[in-house]
This record gives sequence, structure tokens and C-alpha cells, in this order.
Amino acid sequence: MAAAHSKKKAALAYRRPGQPNTLVEVGSHVCFGGEKIVLIGGPCAVESQKQITDTAKAVAKAGAAMLRGGAWKPRTSPYDFQGLKEEGLVMLAEARKVTDLPIVTEVLDPRDVEKVSAVADMLQIGSRSVQNFPLLREVGASNKPVLLKRGMMTTIEEWLAAAEYILAAGNSQVVLCERGIRTFETALRNTLDVGAVAVLKHITHLPVIVDPSHAAGDFRYVAALARAAIAAGADGLLVESHWRPAEALSDACQSLTPEQFQEMTDQCRSVAAAIGRTL
Amino acid sequence: MAAAHSKKKAALAYRRPGQPNTLVEVGSHVCFGGEKIVLIGGPCAVESQKQITDTAKAVAKAGAAMLRGGAWKPRTSPYDFQGLKEEGLVMLAEARKVTDLPIVTEVLDPRDVEKVSAVADMLQIGSRSVQNFPLLREVGASNKPVLLKRGMMTTIEEWLAAAEYILAAGNSQVVLCERGIRTFETALRNTLDVGAVAVLKHITHLPVIVDPSHAAGDFRYVAALARAAIAAGADGLLVESHWRPAEALSDACQSLTPEQFQEMTDQCRSVAAAIGRTL
Amino acid sequence: MAAAHSKKKAALAYRRPGQPNTLVEVGSHVCFGGEKIVLIGGPCAVESQKQITDTAKAVAKAGAAMLRGGAWKPRTSPYDFQGLKEEGLVMLAEARKVTDLPIVTEVLDPRDVEKVSAVADMLQIGSRSVQNFPLLREVGASNKPVLLKRGMMTTIEEWLAAAEYILAAGNSQVVLCERGIRTFETALRNTLDVGAVAVLKHITHLPVIVDPSHAAGDFRYVAALARAAIAAGADGLLVESHWRPAEALSDACQSLTPEQFQEMTDQCRSVAAAIGRTL
Amino acid sequence: MAAAHSKKKAALAYRRPGQPNTLVEVGSHVCFGGEKIVLIGGPCAVESQKQITDTAKAVAKAGAAMLRGGAWKPRTSPYDFQGLKEEGLVMLAEARKVTDLPIVTEVLDPRDVEKVSAVADMLQIGSRSVQNFPLLREVGASNKPVLLKRGMMTTIEEWLAAAEYILAAGNSQVVLCERGIRTFETALRNTLDVGAVAVLKHITHLPVIVDPSHAAGDFRYVAALARAAIAAGADGLLVESHWRPAEALSDACQSLTPEQFQEMTDQCRSVAAAIGRTL
Repeated sequence: MAAAHSKKKAALAYRRPGQPNTLVEVGSHVCFGGEKIVLIGGPCAVESQKQITDTAKAVAKAGAAMLRGGAWKPRTSPYDFQGLKEEGLVMLAEARKVTDLPIVTEVLDPRDVEKVSAVADMLQIGSRSVQNFPLLREVGASNKPVLLKRGMMTTIEEWLAAAEYILAAGNSQVVLCERGIRTFETALRNTLDVGAVAVLKHITHLPVIVDPSHAAGDFRYVAALARAAIAAGADGLLVESHWRPAEALSDACQSLTPEQFQEMTDQCRSVAAAIGRTL
Repeated sequence: MAAAHSKKKAALAYRRPGQPNTLVEVGSHVCFGGEKIVLIGGPCAVESQKQITDTAKAVAKAGAAMLRGGAWKPRTSPYDFQGLKEEGLVMLAEARKVTDLPIVTEVLDPRDVEKVSAVADMLQIGSRSVQNFPLLREVGASNKPVLLKRGMMTTIEEWLAAAEYILAAGNSQVVLCERGIRTFETALRNTLDVGAVAVLKHITHLPVIVDPSHAAGDFRYVAALARAAIAAGADGLLVESHWRPAEALSDACQSLTPEQFQEMTDQCRSVAAAIGRTL
Repeated sequence: MAAAHSKKKAALAYRRPGQPNTLVEVGSHVCFGGEKIVLIGGPCAVESQKQITDTAKAVAKAGAAMLRGGAWKPRTSPYDFQGLKEEGLVMLAEARKVTDLPIVTEVLDPRDVEKVSAVADMLQIGSRSVQNFPLLREVGASNKPVLLKRGMMTTIEEWLAAAEYILAAGNSQVVLCERGIRTFETALRNTLDVGAVAVLKHITHLPVIVDPSHAAGDFRYVAALARAAIAAGADGLLVESHWRPAEALSDACQSLTPEQFQEMTDQCRSVAAAIGRTL
Repeated sequence: MAAAHSKKKAALAYRRPGQPNTLVEVGSHVCFGGEKIVLIGGPCAVESQKQITDTAKAVAKAGAAMLRGGAWKPRTSPYDFQGLKEEGLVMLAEARKVTDLPIVTEVLDPRDVEKVSAVADMLQIGSRSVQNFPLLREVGASNKPVLLKRGMMTTIEEWLAAAEYILAAGNSQVVLCERGIRTFETALRNTLDVGAVAVLKHITHLPVIVDPSHAAGDFRYVAALARAAIAAGADGLLVESHWRPAEALSDACQSLTPEQFQEMTDQCRSVAAAIGRTL
């Protein structure tokens, strides 16, 4: 009954019997939801032109198909670095020009959707915004694919209802991103809900990717979580990497160096092959 | 060390040694944070002029000092009733005229802050918006007192950092509202964190009130949670009441009838007296 | 349907329509479940004859009706103080002789039930043992009243099913004790689920008491949680007190001094009176 | 500081700098903690000689190295099937004779440790017993390897302290088993904490295996969780299988048929190879 109820509440997000996977295309080369697993790499925040371009080159070399980087950063404290904003967008566009990687970047404010859409190839809705309904409606009205992260305490059912806001507004290009949930366990920053990947691949037609960086919060465990995500059936990975993590203005301890990123990619490629996919 | 860190991150929200309670005034008669406990009553959503006015009269008669009622409703599903919006504001204003009760109503979208501020006496930031930073900045720039609800997944530390966004933007009139957190226990809709009230009264100078309706999710348990909140030191209560709960468009099962609201108020008044306060 | 299922699984623990509260008597003077609220005080662990007797005198003077004190202590680490065991029981008996307070003490091992029953007036099943089924069956076969604490992770439904093990074994004298659950919030040691008290008073006929000490984990917040528990309808309180908390071998930071214990009792007595009960 | 504290509290369980993996041997053929991943299969409970023997043959054929099956079952309700007890042990021994698979079975009561040790090759401590300290001491004094499951709400730190009870009692043959933790998400029975596997492989020298069946609670998701566990570095799997799941007396919906078990094994074997291990 709960399930029936949910489906009515999110009729576009749930998979109808026999409905095939939705393919979400970004740029001319990237496609989420197919046989090929999509690797997105890049820093937590855009900090300088050199930082974003050099990191973009490094992740491209390691096999990343897209570049991530925050221009507007949602931070717990008002006194933490809030991002370079418009300037960050310009830097991202420049890094794209150099590497040919499409860009995904977060939009926080419904008033910024137009501005961010003018540059980004894909709009990210962050964990804290998963139930920011005015924002969901606004990206739903845009023509850009959307990366919808799960909230730290959002149920799968609520998450699909959030996706439904975007779908119902006319934008069918939604990719879900599991990034760890909040539990009593504090050994890692969050608890990666790898089971959610398996459940979602069954109940929704939308692509599902995983962010092992925010789940782990510790660079030493990112590769293990990334491998687990691929093995469970994830359609992609969103991984924080920084050309010089020790100098990062945010998320320093969970960012991979280019070497670590390469190593993680190699491992994930093997696991992908083991389950009949490519990366 | 964690505590020292937090205080730096939210220096305005934490209580400095010896700092007295902040008093937050709404209209000419209501004051949060003093000896008198503030009772806010009203429906989940404004549904019609008759519904809001009749409910306002009933809660006023029972001792409520303020009226609540949602004009914009954040709903999990896009297909649920989303509120009467501007029309709801007009009805709230009319109910205020009849009862003389100041109004608190939720604002969801930074673009609506000016519009809502023009009518409401106090702006409510709902649970799902507690870390909606653009919205916090916008209400911080307004001259209206703000009721900041805790998120279902927000730690006390994060909640105070959210308050800091408002305080740092120049608005010192913030009231915190505990409304239950999400845990493994599903017997009630949420788990009221009554200990958070005790902790907050110690570590912050801001007033702290409790919403027992969303914590319980069941009218049968609202009065018990309300009494517990008062006993723990809460400065006020935000309670859902509806003149005809069975006809409510949302939160029907947790709304009190006028008679139940009166009974709860009487009980809370006794408990308030027992700890040397009035209601 | 979930509720119907539960009731079948715990038919003796759930309240049948119209079934009155069960009264659980301990010794000749103490009765749980009636109008009078039962206050149990004493140290976490029995440490010496002087410590337990002096603490017993202090809590008796403040109005406690029973004495608590652990002889066998369940400790997370094998290297922490594990209790004085049989020697502790002898000391408890001596403290009872001096103060005339009945004793409740924890039993951890089914092999110790007979030994502990020979001395204690009431057997405590600790949080970590709430689903220790062999132990539940053993205390169910004893003729002593049982204080059954909720586990840190136990749902109300599972807790009543645990009580059912005792009831089904023939022992109808069970008192439930809420002591805080484990959640994501770490400001206090646990999150007191004050709503569970309200729910239990409705769905079961068994008495329900609250341990505010383990919920708070900090002496500064014990009185506020105790007042909240009484206001919500608890039938009793289990509070850690120590004649010299700074010297306690365990739970030092959550134990009340005799003066703090007296102050808390006075406050709870007022709240009890406000809801028509005595303490 | 928390970490330093933990290590003191569980000095034998934490990995000392440079300390190699502990290898835990069961019977003459099985070894946990080496390059080869150990697959344990079998039913939740032993129900009949035919059921356990036929299931044992099926899992052996699919590549299982050990047989699981409960003779004493810890059940939430006293009215649920509690296991065949001594009779179940006899049936397990017979199934071992037929298949040559070593047996792991749960012991619930410290008084049963000797009896179970006389038959079983490995003793299982179930989730609800992870902090049953008398039981931990008793299996610590036995000469059998121990499979220590994590509790539904046990932190990694508490879990290692529980292992320390066994190690400190003189038994160094401990295998840890992650089986899902309790969170707010109810789509699956529990949330598999795959990150715990990665953390434990780093901080302890003990082998770590995963039970995907209890984590999923649904046969459709067991294989995905099993693959994820292997990819994250688990040293083994504990998987419920039943020759006729629809007839199982417990855990029917999470048990794999022999065909599903075979399919899962094949998939896990590929993933194991991808990370340089065998199964």
C-alpha cells in the first residue's frame, strides 16, 4: 500500500512495467543509463583558473567523461568559503574549452538557474536542496539535464518524489546521485547506502550514480566505495579530485590526487568489466 | 574542541558568558524568551476565509497569542495541495483583523520574502529549508522576526549555524523551533528531541519553542508532547489546530479540534505554573 | 496492519480494550502504575559500603522510594570496571537495611538470576540485554518484578515483544523504562524519546518509567528531562546519584550530587502536582 | 583522541602498525583473511534433515566452503519458531558428513556454549548478542573460531570492543560480519554499511565478511549487495539459501533458491577476480 501510494505520488519517476532505462545525454559524448559507466571528476569548489584547468586535465587523462566543480557552495557556516560564483562559471567554461569535458555545477538559488544554465552542461541539485521545491520547479523548467543528489536523511521514496517535481515540470533528463546518508555511525562522514542503488535500478527508469567522496569524507576509503558502487550497478561516479588536495579550500581530506584518481579509475574499470560494463 | 569550533562558526548564535536571553517581539503584545510562554495556534494550511477566521477565533479564545497558517506549502509530492499562495496571505490578514492575533507564515522561496513580509508579522523557515542558505540570507535582510524550524536531520550545531546566517545578515530576531527529528522509531511521525530544548536554553541566547504536532503526527499525543516541552523549558508552542480537522487538506490526523486545543492549553498552563512561568 | 500484527506477537503486553493499568508492587510500600510516581535513585555502580549507604540515605531523604546500584556492570570495554558482583549485592542489602529502600539491580547472565533474586527486590534488564531472550525467559520464570530497559536501537514494538517473553513465561510484574535512543544527534549521550512514554501509556497496561540520566549523559540536563518525563505521563524515574560524583568509577558526569537530586525531586514534585499526581 | 581512546579499550582488536592480517582457520580447508574469499551458505534455520542436507548439497555445488544453519533462533516474538535446538545440531552434523562442509551456527546462551562447541566448527554470535558480555567471555574461553556479527546499531568502535572481550579471554580466532545497520531508510530491511568493510580492513587485523541477506531482507537485492561487499574488500559472504524458500519457517523472503545462489556466486567470482582475489 505504501508502494502504491508512492507510485501515485511520483508516477513519472517510478518505472512502469516494462519501461526501459531512460538515457540522459550531456553534451555530444556523454550518456547516463547505458552500458557505459560515466565518471565525473573534479574539485569540490572552483578556486582558480589554474586549479580547475589542471585538475580537469588530470581527470580527463584518467578517464573522466565530465568535470565537476562548485561555483556556488552551500556551506554550514556563513563564515566558510562560499564559492567564486559567476567568476567560477567563467573558469569552468575555460576548463571545458581546454579539455572538452562537459561541466556539471551546483545551482542553489532559483534566481540563479538561468545564469548557471547559460554555462553549465548539467545542473546539480545538492543534498541540502533535494526538497527545495521552488528550485526543483525552476530546474524542471530549464532545458538542462539535472543531477539530483539525495539528501542526508531523505528516503528513497521522498527522493523520487523530489525527482517528480522536475519531471512534472517538463524536464525528463534527471540523474539520481546517492551520496551517503546520516546514521549513528561516525567512522565515516556518511553511510553509503549501496542498497539504494540496487533498489533504484529496479523501481525507477532514471540513471543512478554514486558520490563516494562525500560518503567517505576520507580519501583513503573513496576507491573502495567507488568499486562497491559499480559492483552494485551504479551508472556513474561523481568523485572529488584536486590537483593539490592539501591546498583545497574545502573538502581537502576527501579529495583524491590525480594519481589516486587514476588508481581508483583503473580499479573501477576492472569491476565494471566483471559485470559486463565499460568505464 | 568540537564545541569551540562550533562557537567560532556561529559566534552570534551561541551564548557568550553572562549573555542574557534575547527577547524577540512580534507585534505589540507578543514576546518570545521572557517569563511568559507564547502559544501559537492555527491550521497547517490556509484553506478558506471561513476556515482560517473561525480557527483563529477558537485558538484566540483558548489562549493563543499568535496565529499560524501556511499560504505556501512545501509538500513531498508535486501533486499534493501546494497552498493558496497570495490569496492565503490575504485571508490571514483578514483573520488577524478579526482576532488581533499576529501572524506567522512560511516563506519557501527567496523571491517571495518581500511579498510575505508585507503581510506577515513573523516569517517561518520550514524544516526542509533550514539549510536553504539563499533563503536564510534573504530573511536575514528583512526586518521581520524569523521562526527557524529545525530540519528532520539537522544537528543542534548545524541548526545554530543556520541561525547564524540570519543573524550575520543583520536580523537578530530569531526564534528556534524544535519539531522532532527522524530516527529509526516509526510509532510517531518524528521523535521529539526534548533534550535539544534543554541544551539550547543553555548554549544559545535565542528563544526556543516546540512544535508538538509535527513531532507526534497524531492528535492523541500532541498534548503530552506539549506538556513535556513546557516542562523542559520551552519558551513557546506551535500547535496545529483546525476548526474541523476531518476536512483539513493536509495534516488532518495531527490537528486538534478547538476543544482539544483548549484542553491542551489548560494542561500546559498548569505545567507552566509548576515551573514558575505563565502561559 | 502493522499494529494488528504486533498485538498478536505480544498479546499479553498490549492493552486490551478497557484493560486497566497493571500495578507492579515492589516490597510493601512501592507501587508502579498508580497515581503516585516512583522515584528510584542511587549510583551507577556499587563501589563501597560507605558509598552505597551514604548515597542511599541521601536519595531517601530527597524522596526516593527505591535504591538502584549495579553489582554486575555491562561495559563496552573488557578493561573497564565490571562491578563488585556478589560483594556488591551484600552491600546493597546492607544499604537497604539502613534506609528501608527496596533495591533494583541489574542481572546480566541467566546463570545469575537465582543469585540476584535472592537479594534484590526488583531485577533490572539493561539496555544491551533487551533482546537477550534466554535472560528474559529466566527472569520470566523468577518471582521478582522486572525493570525492562529499552535498548538504544529497539523500536517500541520490539520492546513490547521483549516484555512478552517475560509475561509469557509467567511473570506479569514488568515495568518498562525509556532511557534514550541512538540517533544522529550527539549533543547529548542519547535522545530521550519522550513520545514513547505517551504512546506506551496508550498501547500497553504496563507501567512506564524514564531514566533521564542515561538519556542526558550530562548532569546539567537531567532535571529538565526528568520534568519532561513526568509531564508526558511517566510513572516513575530512575536517576543516577552519587554522594561524590567526581569519585565515581563510572558515569561520573551524569550523576547528580545529593543537593542536585533534591532540587530535581522538588521540581518534579511540582510538575507531578500540575498533572494531578504525586511524587 | 577518540581513536586513541578506542585503541586502548580494544588493544588486541585494532591493528598495530605493520601487523599482518590474522588468518582464521575453520576445519582443514577453510581460511578467512587470505586471498581466497570464503562463501558460507545455508538456511536461516535448520528445519528438517532433508531441508538442511539438500540445501547443503546445493550450496556446496555452487561453491560454498561452509554451511550455516540456526539451531537456536533469536526471535523478536516468543511465539515465533525458536529453532530445533539440540536436534538441529544433530542434523547439521549429518549434513556436514554428507557434504564435508564445516558448520557455523549461532549460540545464544552462555550455558549452551559447550554443547554447541561439541558439534559446530565455528560459533556465531548474532546481532542481538554483540554486547552480551557473559556470552562473549564464554566463547572467548572456548577453542572454536567465532563469527561476531555487528549489532543493528553498534558503532564500529563498540563492535571492536566486543571482539576484544573474546580476544582478551584468550580466543584469537574472531571473524567480524557486517550485516546492515538500522537507519531511517526502510526500503530494505537494513542499510548495508559497505564503508564499514573498508574501514575495518584498515584498522583491524581481523577478517571481515558480509551478510547481504539480512541487510537486504529481499532476495532480489542480495546479489547486488554481495557483489558490492566483495568489491569493497570483504573476506567472505554469509548468504541465506534454502532449497525451497517459499516453505521456509523464517526469513523466507530473503533466502535464495539454489539457482539464485549459483548465479550470485558466479557474479561474485567475477568481481573477486577483478580485484585480484578468488572465490
